[in-house]
Amino acid sequence: MPPLDEFARIRSWTEHRQPKALLEKAGVSLGIGDDAAVIDGAPGMQWLLSADAMVERVHFLDETMEEADIGYKALAANVSDIAAMGGLPKHALISVCAPPAWNAMRIGRLYDGLYACANKYGVAVVGGDTTSAPEHLVISVTLVGVVEAGRAIKRSGAKPGHIVFLTGPTGLSAAGLHGLLMQSRGAPNVGTLPARLVQAHRRPAPSVKAGRLLLETSWGESLNDVSDGLASEAWEIAEASGAKLVLRESALPISGELASFASAQGKRALDWILYGGEDYVLLGTADGNRQVALQALFREEGLPFFVIGEVEEGTPGVMLETAFGVRKPLGKGGYNHFPEG
Amino acid sequence: MPPLDEFARIRSWTEHRQPKALLEKAGVSLGIGDDAAVIDGAPGMQWLLSADAMVERVHFLDETMEEADIGYKALAANVSDIAAMGGLPKHALISVCAPPAWNAMRIGRLYDGLYACANKYGVAVVGGDTTSAPEHLVISVTLVGVVEAGRAIKRSGAKPGHIVFLTGPTGLSAAGLHGLLMQSRGAPNVGTLPARLVQAHRRPAPSVKAGRLLLETSWGESLNDVSDGLASEAWEIAEASGAKLVLRESALPISGELASFASAQGKRALDWILYGGEDYVLLGTADGNRQVALQALFREEGLPFFVIGEVEEGTPGVMLETAFGVRKPLGKGGYNHFPEG
Repeated sequence: MPPLDEFARIRSWTEHRQPKALLEKAGVSLGIGDDAAVIDGAPGMQWLLSADAMVERVHFLDETMEEADIGYKALAANVSDIAAMGGLPKHALISVCAPPAWNAMRIGRLYDGLYACANKYGVAVVGGDTTSAPEHLVISVTLVGVVEAGRAIKRSGAKPGHIVFLTGPTGLSAAGLHGLLMQSRGAPNVGTLPARLVQAHRRPAPSVKAGRLLLETSWGESLNDVSDGLASEAWEIAEASGAKLVLRESALPISGELASFASAQGKRALDWILYGGEDYVLLGTADGNRQVALQALFREEGLPFFVIGEVEEGTPGVMLETAFGVRKPLGKGGYNHFPEG
Repeated sequence: MPPLDEFARIRSWTEHRQPKALLEKAGVSLGIGDDAAVIDGAPGMQWLLSADAMVERVHFLDETMEEADIGYKALAANVSDIAAMGGLPKHALISVCAPPAWNAMRIGRLYDGLYACANKYGVAVVGGDTTSAPEHLVISVTLVGVVEAGRAIKRSGAKPGHIVFLTGPTGLSAAGLHGLLMQSRGAPNVGTLPARLVQAHRRPAPSVKAGRLLLETSWGESLNDVSDGLASEAWEIAEASGAKLVLRESALPISGELASFASAQGKRALDWILYGGEDYVLLGTADGNRQVALQALFREEGLPFFVIGEVEEGTPGVMLETAFGVRKPLGKGGYNHFPEG
């Protein structure tokens, strides 16, 4: 608990920030201001709990993220974890450890972004902790979600005969970060950064609706959100399921903005697509017989859906098949936040 | 989510650390290893959510706390928040942001302490996040507890005619910290530190059982845990309740170890008792007519219970009445972690 004089400040950041109806709908019996928040249970439902921390200089830089972006993204990353189970995000707890350079106004802006994300996804912010820190800001978010009992979609459900799908293109966030870093370092040939890439990096849009569709239809058999890069997440599904995933290079979605930015920068778009990370789209598998129905359903709902590969019999792992039909093992890669740093 | 090669390390810290029966009893349908943990709901119950972060150099120092103590205390502080609602702690999520100086072995010892506390209080550790940090360790804990629906004991229930009580002595942790700091700075006259004071600082014992008694009997009317110091917590109850609390100096419990250590150090024990903080006992109020029954109940259960004052009509605030019957307003104080630093 913060000392008493902190309460007024916390209140100024958190009070009257959310519609009452939202808090009621989320079942908040007692929110911020006591030792713990009280949440009504729901029969036939399960609660989903997730936590993610973002650290200054490790996950974000002043040069590339506004304060509000940091708050927005910290919550969005957690919303994505709930989406990756097919659940609905409900209640968030936020711990902010702020160094002297982060004054009350800057923290206020961080909360601006955080509540923008919370209100967009119907998340009630019900508690947390605010404390000082010696040098670098840390924001830790815990998110509680709900899901129909026994129905959460795990990583371990991939089986031979499944298709591998994505609910959006990957690589945009990493490309946006690259551009922002170049810009902040005064690189001469960056030009105007494509807004879509910057937005993807600063304000990712987790696939909650897609996750719900996959659960409600029972057609999503395994699911993961792309936080550490497509290759890394595919490996997680492969290892959790004991399955062999084959991704087809020619089937990987690539946005026009990404293609032309990569070419202008002399970079390989495929590296960002496979290893970029922080995309917060969903990667999953589904029975091959459901492919047409899934594509129709997502089209009907106005959501993207890309079939990027298949699950086969064989040693658990991930292969990439080139446009020429050559297969090679795909490295796990993993996201190095500031490779140019 | 951490990169893939982190999973093995996390597993080494977390796997097989808790009895299967404990996890089953806590209703863990899916624990560490996926995007979110799945927890069974319970009809007629409410979930309690609390979060607290501990930051190196702000909340603890290498010189005064072992790694395991830090993990233990980070969880215990949250258990205390659940106890202060009359609830039972159930599921914890842990985010650890570790700088280079915190290698895998040190983090392992941090988890040792954390699980020691978790197993003691029947808490299932169901998720979290581990990430790097530039310089200082941050550990953020979120704890989910349960409580009978509509029965959680709030800060706001204090009314004239109530007694004010404590479920244990205060000031021990601050005295222990003082001794540990003096010792680490090579002060010549510290002598052997009383083990009880050191233990109170490093391994606090939250009053879960006391909180449950106060809820089950319906006799606890307002409740707070003493994290920021007795004066500060009394003010929280006074302000939340719109009530005037009068604490009697002569009724404040003082342990023999604290009294003699304070005297040997030339310190005023009362300062530690009122402003020390991190005691994690409970401060609350109850109908004066229940005093005898409460005292008998706690005696029967082998738990301490101290009546330290009364709630009166008047301007909301906190007064301290000296042994001579003189009343003076009690400052909020608040806990300055390292006043000697």
